[in-house]
Amino acid sequence: MENELLQWIKKALLQLNLVESMEQTKGFTRLGYTKEEQAAQRQFRLIAQSLGLHTYQDVAGNQWAVWQVDDHLGTIATGSHLDTVYNGGGYDGVAGVVAALAAVKLLKERRFMPTKNIAIVVFACEESARFGISTIGSKAICGLLEKDHVASIQDANGITVEEAVNNCGLNWRNIEEAELSTHSLEQFIELHIEQGSRLEKAQKEIGIVRAIAQPTRLFITCNGMTNHTGTTPMNERQDALVPIAQLISYIEKIALEINECQTTPLMATVSTIKASPNAMNMIPEEVIVGIDIRSTSAKLKKEIVSAVKKFIEKVEAERSVTMHLKTTVDDEPIQLDQAIQTTFTNLCKELGLSSMIVDSGAGHDVMNMAKRWPSGLLFIPCREGISHHPSEYADCHDLLKGATLIAAFLEKAATITS
Amino acid sequence: MENELLQWIKKALLQLNLVESMEQTKGFTRLGYTKEEQAAQRQFRLIAQSLGLHTYQDVAGNQWAVWQVDDHLGTIATGSHLDTVYNGGGYDGVAGVVAALAAVKLLKERRFMPTKNIAIVVFACEESARFGISTIGSKAICGLLEKDHVASIQDANGITVEEAVNNCGLNWRNIEEAELSTHSLEQFIELHIEQGSRLEKAQKEIGIVRAIAQPTRLFITCNGMTNHTGTTPMNERQDALVPIAQLISYIEKIALEINECQTTPLMATVSTIKASPNAMNMIPEEVIVGIDIRSTSAKLKKEIVSAVKKFIEKVEAERSVTMHLKTTVDDEPIQLDQAIQTTFTNLCKELGLSSMIVDSGAGHDVMNMAKRWPSGLLFIPCREGISHHPSEYADCHDLLKGATLIAAFLEKAATITS
Repeated sequence: MENELLQWIKKALLQLNLVESMEQTKGFTRLGYTKEEQAAQRQFRLIAQSLGLHTYQDVAGNQWAVWQVDDHLGTIATGSHLDTVYNGGGYDGVAGVVAALAAVKLLKERRFMPTKNIAIVVFACEESARFGISTIGSKAICGLLEKDHVASIQDANGITVEEAVNNCGLNWRNIEEAELSTHSLEQFIELHIEQGSRLEKAQKEIGIVRAIAQPTRLFITCNGMTNHTGTTPMNERQDALVPIAQLISYIEKIALEINECQTTPLMATVSTIKASPNAMNMIPEEVIVGIDIRSTSAKLKKEIVSAVKKFIEKVEAERSVTMHLKTTVDDEPIQLDQAIQTTFTNLCKELGLSSMIVDSGAGHDVMNMAKRWPSGLLFIPCREGISHHPSEYADCHDLLKGATLIAAFLEKAATITS
Repeated sequence: MENELLQWIKKALLQLNLVESMEQTKGFTRLGYTKEEQAAQRQFRLIAQSLGLHTYQDVAGNQWAVWQVDDHLGTIATGSHLDTVYNGGGYDGVAGVVAALAAVKLLKERRFMPTKNIAIVVFACEESARFGISTIGSKAICGLLEKDHVASIQDANGITVEEAVNNCGLNWRNIEEAELSTHSLEQFIELHIEQGSRLEKAQKEIGIVRAIAQPTRLFITCNGMTNHTGTTPMNERQDALVPIAQLISYIEKIALEINECQTTPLMATVSTIKASPNAMNMIPEEVIVGIDIRSTSAKLKKEIVSAVKKFIEKVEAERSVTMHLKTTVDDEPIQLDQAIQTTFTNLCKELGLSSMIVDSGAGHDVMNMAKRWPSGLLFIPCREGISHHPSEYADCHDLLKGATLIAAFLEKAATITS
């Protein structure tokens, strides 16, 4: 029967990714609030319905599939997302959805009789790839969406979040109605691929996440002055790109230095760059870079932001350019529920799964859910830690182990003990 | 009468730029083969017709205005272009067109009777801002257009050169017919703003150009591997942006060093950059930069290209990325006609204009014309050397002096001496 479920997981993985094979040279591009994401969500509803679950969409485009026992009873939820980054992998997000579905299938086959409701949720638009902001769907559920601020944020084609949501047949005006009351849920757990290689290196099957490193995001704009590339002497320029180049090198250098001195990892990446006028015969006049900083240590994040500030002041003093720093995100690390972590640890022992406590460098929908409900996050290994890339890969045996663990958790959590 | 011509020049400048005032916060955006360029060309035809010139457009979209004496006689041509870069100035190109028109007006008022034909030409699409290639119109006239190669080059909106030309009511298929036979022209001269500050610093009224620095253009692609910004340890990355940042800093450094050692200037600019996936939570996987290198010394250009090649080999050896260099343009500096330079020098003396011999760091249509016909290039000062920028400015008194010099040249050149 385990082999049968393994085959079922493989099939569900292909179905949710809308492919015949998980080997895709260009990976998967399924941005939030697009037809591609909706197509995957449709497959989710079909699978969930085949398991006898009741499916519906909330006003933020989140998909729900419920094993309904009684409206008056508590609900235990699990799930993840189906959107991807540009040319991403087919496991980031999907793994958690497949594992949740497989867990319900397992419980149904065991003829488990829950005494609380069980819900699978597929959050809309988890990735920040399209709009530069992440977890829109789960923010709406948790009442954390800054509606007015978010509405006008544009994607690369100038489409706003509001337009994208409306284009999906939803109504942005009502999006706040997606918020759930506190009593609607009791607990939430999410399974995700690790997107790192600690499990692989330690040869552990399950990672039990203690804290999530929230991003601090900076945009730095450098303003110089354009002029003709062929006539402006090298020592009379106000080139905006060269100081940014120095900043990019510096950020890598300082992040490496900080990591050498302590054990909590800090990641700092200049991930986006936009230069104007970006024409072959014109000196760059304005360059904007986006910097993504992550750590479960708020102190380390502050340390590098402060170093970056000092660096740009130094560059401004040395060169005829102005530099401006804007912080768009600066969230505190999220600590996950201690009792759920203990439950996970005990269940792993019972099931004979090797586990380790880890931190998460990436943000997930669970970080919003954790602000409202006791929440937990599980990792399964992914090959060489590669993620957000066509060669992202997780073994279906690991997905099966994850599903088994979720099933055990739901079995325990969805049973009234009195 | 000089004051009257000054006012006429000021008016023509506004008319060709389609504005009421030359003070434009965002400058002028009149890319090649667009409606904006065509609108300026229309104004040119109107002004030329008011001077009694015969106007027509050739199959490459170049505008001609001819003071026709006899088909069997030689033709002396002068002119420049009316297209601009993005948010450029209103003098780059336009100055040469206005000066040519004013020179003809001056000659007509003097009741000069030419014994050769005089032609004013407005070349189409001189700037490389739109398609990354420059001087398309003059290349067509000179038979230097690589038609098959150029046809499919796209602008930022994916419109090809062929489509853009056809959208102007021209027919790309026939573009080669714009080429002029050798006997069609005798000489060509162009006036342009200096786009540098040597005249201003030396307090000279006219620059007589000896040679034109042709660009060498490189594209360097760095390929790394993307991954999640929040989960990939700093020392396990294949970030494609950091090595490019090192390259940008290096190019400025080496160019400054080369300039310190000798007198012929060398300019090297990383002017374009494109990063993929350019998403906030993904490590840069591929970064492509465009590098524009200029000097009237072919040796110096070779020296810096060789240094760049060594540098990228060093970076490849140190980091887990690959770097690839592609040379798209590598032209030899152009020497202009010596006899025309001598004529200019003598005429300046006669007219009481201070002049100096200079090199041109920027390319101009005259560099194509010089390959076919004896050609000359004149510079007038522009404020602080600023060009390709909204604050580009040339004094109309300097334009008037340039027009006077062109008139004197045409008077001499368009007279049969036997």
